[in-house]
Amino acid sequence: MIGVCDAKDMLNKYLFNKLFNKKSYVEIYDSYGKVLAEDIFSTVDIPFFNKSDKDGYAVVNLNSKKYTIIDEVFAGDMRDLKIKNNECVYVATGAKIPKGANYVIPVEYAKKYRNELRLMGNIEESNIINIGEDIKKNNKVLIKGTIINERNIGILASLGIKKVKVYKTPNVGIISTGNELQYINEVNSKTIFSIVKKSNCQPIFIGCAKDDISDLKRKINKALESCDIIITSGGVSAGKKDYLSRVVSDMGNIIFHKVRMKPGMPMLFGEINEKPIFCMPGNVVSCLTCSYVFLLPFLKRMAHIPFSKKVFGAQLSEDIHSEYGMTYYRPVKLKNGMAYPTFKGSNLITSIAYADGLIEIKEDEILKKKGDIVNVWVFD
Amino acid sequence: MIGVCDAKDMLNKYLFNKLFNKKSYVEIYDSYGKVLAEDIFSTVDIPFFNKSDKDGYAVVNLNSKKYTIIDEVFAGDMRDLKIKNNECVYVATGAKIPKGANYVIPVEYAKKYRNELRLMGNIEESNIINIGEDIKKNNKVLIKGTIINERNIGILASLGIKKVKVYKTPNVGIISTGNELQYINEVNSKTIFSIVKKSNCQPIFIGCAKDDISDLKRKINKALESCDIIITSGGVSAGKKDYLSRVVSDMGNIIFHKVRMKPGMPMLFGEINEKPIFCMPGNVVSCLTCSYVFLLPFLKRMAHIPFSKKVFGAQLSEDIHSEYGMTYYRPVKLKNGMAYPTFKGSNLITSIAYADGLIEIKEDEILKKKGDIVNVWVFD
Repeated sequence: MIGVCDAKDMLNKYLFNKLFNKKSYVEIYDSYGKVLAEDIFSTVDIPFFNKSDKDGYAVVNLNSKKYTIIDEVFAGDMRDLKIKNNECVYVATGAKIPKGANYVIPVEYAKKYRNELRLMGNIEESNIINIGEDIKKNNKVLIKGTIINERNIGILASLGIKKVKVYKTPNVGIISTGNELQYINEVNSKTIFSIVKKSNCQPIFIGCAKDDISDLKRKINKALESCDIIITSGGVSAGKKDYLSRVVSDMGNIIFHKVRMKPGMPMLFGEINEKPIFCMPGNVVSCLTCSYVFLLPFLKRMAHIPFSKKVFGAQLSEDIHSEYGMTYYRPVKLKNGMAYPTFKGSNLITSIAYADGLIEIKEDEILKKKGDIVNVWVFD
Repeated sequence: MIGVCDAKDMLNKYLFNKLFNKKSYVEIYDSYGKVLAEDIFSTVDIPFFNKSDKDGYAVVNLNSKKYTIIDEVFAGDMRDLKIKNNECVYVATGAKIPKGANYVIPVEYAKKYRNELRLMGNIEESNIINIGEDIKKNNKVLIKGTIINERNIGILASLGIKKVKVYKTPNVGIISTGNELQYINEVNSKTIFSIVKKSNCQPIFIGCAKDDISDLKRKINKALESCDIIITSGGVSAGKKDYLSRVVSDMGNIIFHKVRMKPGMPMLFGEINEKPIFCMPGNVVSCLTCSYVFLLPFLKRMAHIPFSKKVFGAQLSEDIHSEYGMTYYRPVKLKNGMAYPTFKGSNLITSIAYADGLIEIKEDEILKKKGDIVNVWVFD
């Protein structure tokens, strides 16, 4: 039996040594939320021509008394026009600036009469976007590990990138175990499925296995075919039909089994065929607690997504007792700055279904008192 | 031209009057993140039989000197056993409790010798989960509007619900416009696509339209076939080839056009065939700014998902000037509690691509000074 911190350390070390590093190309439209697996360098200047920032008139200088309008250019008109002193060309926003022009007089500063134009007032800016002003050729514009969002995707789009190399998110095989699943409704695969989606990975429900060594091995072998990581639930405690620890040591090796925490003590972590396997306790609240504490950060790290917690202080509404040497996790509901414990039992889904967050009571504590300010890890 | 607050009000009123209310059934495994479109009532007691909370021995009372072990029951064994005084049955966690039993003696409190058992120590709890202790039959267990997450999905699973009625997320048709898109790389459809994904709605890229009234109408008609809302970008300003306002008033009606904000002033909101249409400015930063300020909250509300902002205080690193009567939005990078403006121009994607949040400078202000603590709407 190990402590929660040691268990976390072992998971981190495991991932550090066996970083999940598969890559794939995705279409830019499918890249939102994915993580770049390569640095992106600009291959072109953006813009690649001088471009008007305003609807207005391109001129060589601002000194002329009047300008003759000789042409008009709209965005998308790629002709190479030239202008001389005392000439001007109407340019729409985004239009290509004629050669020789140094300023755009915005329409609101221009007085037009037939094909002649006068500048009214003072212009302080050129109103021209120069070649490379947005993005310079050969610059590193996005670094490996960047999560693609609605803003930086504009960089990829500007460069005309159609497909982008991203980290593949692991396929996560989910197996529920227990003979009772023939009679009662199976819960854990749905909660784990959701945790996997929350971590941006791909859940695959493999099926339910009986409390039977060969059925367990069959289901695990099936998961190994298509999955990068396996999550089971149930059959991992000390009962007579809890075969998971035997199955994992037969097929691979156990890295740790049993953690000094409640709920969640029976948890097992191991490896089979170089793939990690989490065996979660069968009790629904234990399974969810271990998912929050261990699985979610592990999956996010596999997906190269930073893991962070939202932690808020709240005032505890009643005493919570715990045991020395055990880390306790207790779900709470938050209301008006108060944290109300909701735990009724580790096999009762309503202990956590309506909760807003988790309280951790560390190994060296035995009591959080009513009125204490406690840190609540708020679910998001 | 209207103010930002009026524009938001008009959008809210529009949605209030024309709430998007399509519903569909999804498989429970696909329901994570969706919004319940019905109240859920429990149809059964959970558990539906008395169940052991521990590995141990079921007994009638705790007074006997010793108990005779007459059988064993594992989870999933649904036999109706009966026990008498001085008898006991081994029950695994989750196993059905024999009729007549009132307590489970956990294995660690039991001393076993052959088929006889003695209780060691004091037992304070029954260690039995009673019928309905988790969820009572006919209770309302989840209310309409609940977002399905990794915890409350356990309630649906416990009840054996396979499919659940949820609000459909709107299909969002995206059209980019502008003749220049033949020559320069098109950006706005990718940023809008991402905003739509961020809001949990379904983006559909309809295509690029030329600055041509009939092409614009053709693309909008195409979007109307499959989409619940249309987003265009470009062609909505005051230029000679900005046809969107004419197209919207031809095909439906304009609800507002032009907002007193920078960037983003040209924005238009209207309705065609009872479907909302947002016409975003073509400049990439203007398009993204209007997306954050107006589109994202609108889409989330269409999807029945609460919209909230994360706002943090930060110290401004330099003066930002604005105009009286105009709301200014300025992207900033955050570092060590400081906010560094990144705006270079509304058509330069690098003005916002690397930013962490937006600052709003309200209509009645003209300056935020270096050193001021400003509210930063942090992107997440």
